[in-house]
This record gives sequence, structure tokens and C-alpha cells, in this order.
Amino acid sequence: MQEEIYVLRIGHRIERDKRVTTHVGLVARAFGAKGIFITNAENEIKSKIDQVTRIWGGPFICELIDVDWKKFISNWKNENGIIIHLTMYGLPVEEKIDEIRLRKEKKLVVVGAEKVPNELYYLSDYNISITNQPHSEIAALALFLDRFYSGKELSLKFSNAKLKIVPMERGKKVIESRI
Amino acid sequence: MQEEIYVLRIGHRIERDKRVTTHVGLVARAFGAKGIFITNAENEIKSKIDQVTRIWGGPFICELIDVDWKKFISNWKNENGIIIHLTMYGLPVEEKIDEIRLRKEKKLVVVGAEKVPNELYYLSDYNISITNQPHSEIAALALFLDRFYSGKELSLKFSNAKLKIVPMERGKKVIESRI
Repeated sequence: MQEEIYVLRIGHRIERDKRVTTHVGLVARAFGAKGIFITNAENEIKSKIDQVTRIWGGPFICELIDVDWKKFISNWKNENGIIIHLTMYGLPVEEKIDEIRLRKEKKLVVVGAEKVPNELYYLSDYNISITNQPHSEIAALALFLDRFYSGKELSLKFSNAKLKIVPMERGKKVIESRI
Repeated sequence: MQEEIYVLRIGHRIERDKRVTTHVGLVARAFGAKGIFITNAENEIKSKIDQVTRIWGGPFICELIDVDWKKFISNWKNENGIIIHLTMYGLPVEEKIDEIRLRKEKKLVVVGAEKVPNELYYLSDYNISITNQPHSEIAALALFLDRFYSGKELSLKFSNAKLKIVPMERGKKVIESRI
């Protein structure tokens, strides 16, 4: 339960953010989140993320949601979940991660696109920064999950993978399993 | 000298990868690389990255290069630099990072877009994976630099910053310095 962590992507801009939002989803999966919710995005993004889960394993859920992000967050809190907003203005991840890891509630990590509504800072239980420099919500999410799982996510095993990579010094080696 | 690490972004696709390549550049800067070279990309990307350096501090160089990536890599090696290629097919970063950190040569971390030419695997001194799952070159670069600098990059100070953030639990606090 402690490790039940989901991602909410808000502020996605149609077409413009297509690739960035897809990366956010793939990072959420690869770094051990259980799923991602994306507000107002193209079906194509969900297809791409689901396809990766089908081929490389899961479990991982991807849901496109129509409901307003505020409504979604307030539902999450009503079900006793907590909200962690990643922002360059927040407190350093190193300062807060142990406390967050110990919380028993279901966790929702919120990552926005370029500009995020001010209210989010007040609706969140934690505003957490991964450096106070402008960079990328993709990198911020990866680093947050890395610190949350203390690096263990780098050797995470996925279930029902059709393809698996055998790490190599040079070249590519992939094993196909028939399941 | 040991910490002289640069990034080379190859395979950028005009328009399509604009935002992703910009994120790669901003992550390179925020996570402590000295600069980024980008093959065949829009001026707009350089403007955006340079603007961040101007406002939030440096030093960080961003260069758009016209020369073929193979030529660039071979020049780098001729000047006794080493090449580290980030790829999901490579050896786990945890296995190799201590060795890489001890190398005295100038380092070039290569990150490709979707598909990378096979030759690169053979021209590189190291092919390194950040998980063997498909995700994002942005996240891969962030994690690689994080492991290279052992997390110290998260509190990196930049010189000549016009703006600095004061981390806060809620809201935004920015200090402007007149330099």
C-alpha cells in the first residue's frame, strides 16, 4: 500500500505536448508508478503507452480523463489519498522524501506542463522540487520516483513481458517470450 | 577535468522533437553538464536554452552543429575524449558508473531520438542503460548525471543568475539580483 503511487499529468496541450506527455507516461511506468491519469489528451498517447505495457510488461494503467483536474484531486483526497506536486518552487526532494515514503496513503504525483494554476500549490500536501532550476517534468518525475524507491526501481521486473532486453556492452540483444 | 562532461543530442527531427530536445538541453544544464551540442536543430531551441542560462545562471554552452554526428564523435575521440551512449540495450548504469567517474578524459554523453544508428554502439566507449525499459532520453540523461555526480548536482549553484528561487512549502518565491 505504501508503494501505491500514481501520476497525474495536467495542462497537456493538444499536439504540442504529445511527445513530452508520452515520455511522462513511459517514465511513470519504467520507474515504478502503478499508473498515470492524463487530462484532455489524444487517444494516440494512451495507445502508445498501452502498447509499451503490452510488449514490455506491467502492470501499469493509463487513463485519459475528461474530468477537471481540481475535481480529480479533490476526489483523490476524499478517498484519503495525498497529493505531491512537483515544482521548481517547492522544497527539495532530499528534505521530504523520507517523510513521504513513510506516509501510508495512496499517493498522487502531479506534474504540469509549462505553467500550472496557482491553486495547485495550496491543494497539494507537498510541493517538491527536483533542483530549483527550470528543466523538465519528465526528469523531475524520474528523479522523484528514483528517490522514493531508493534506486530499486532501476532493476524493477515487469510481469507478462513479451520482450526482454539482455544488457550488453555493444549491440542489442532482445529475448522474445511466447506467453 | 574529471567532471568535464558534455552532451551530444543526435537524431533530432525538426518540429517533431522540438520540445523534447529543449528538455534534453535544460536537463543537461540543470544536472551539471558543461554544455550540449545538437545536430541539425532549430535556432529556437538554442535561443530557449541560452535564455534559461542567461536568467538562471551558468556556465553552460549550447551549440547547434551542422557536422555529421560521426565526424563529431571521431573528433572528440581524436582529442582523447570518451563517448558514453545512453541506450536501453546497454549495461546498467549502477555497474559502470564508478569506472566512468574515475576516467580522466573529457566525456561526451550521447542521447539519440527514437532510433539510433547501429554504428553508434560500436563507436562508443560505453553503452549504458538506465533501466532496460523504453522510456525517455530526458529521464535517462537526468539519472545518468545524477549517478555520475552522486546526487550532488541537486544542490548545484549557478553563477551570474538573475533569478533565484527560495524553496517554499506553498507558493512561489523568487529573488531577483541586479548584476
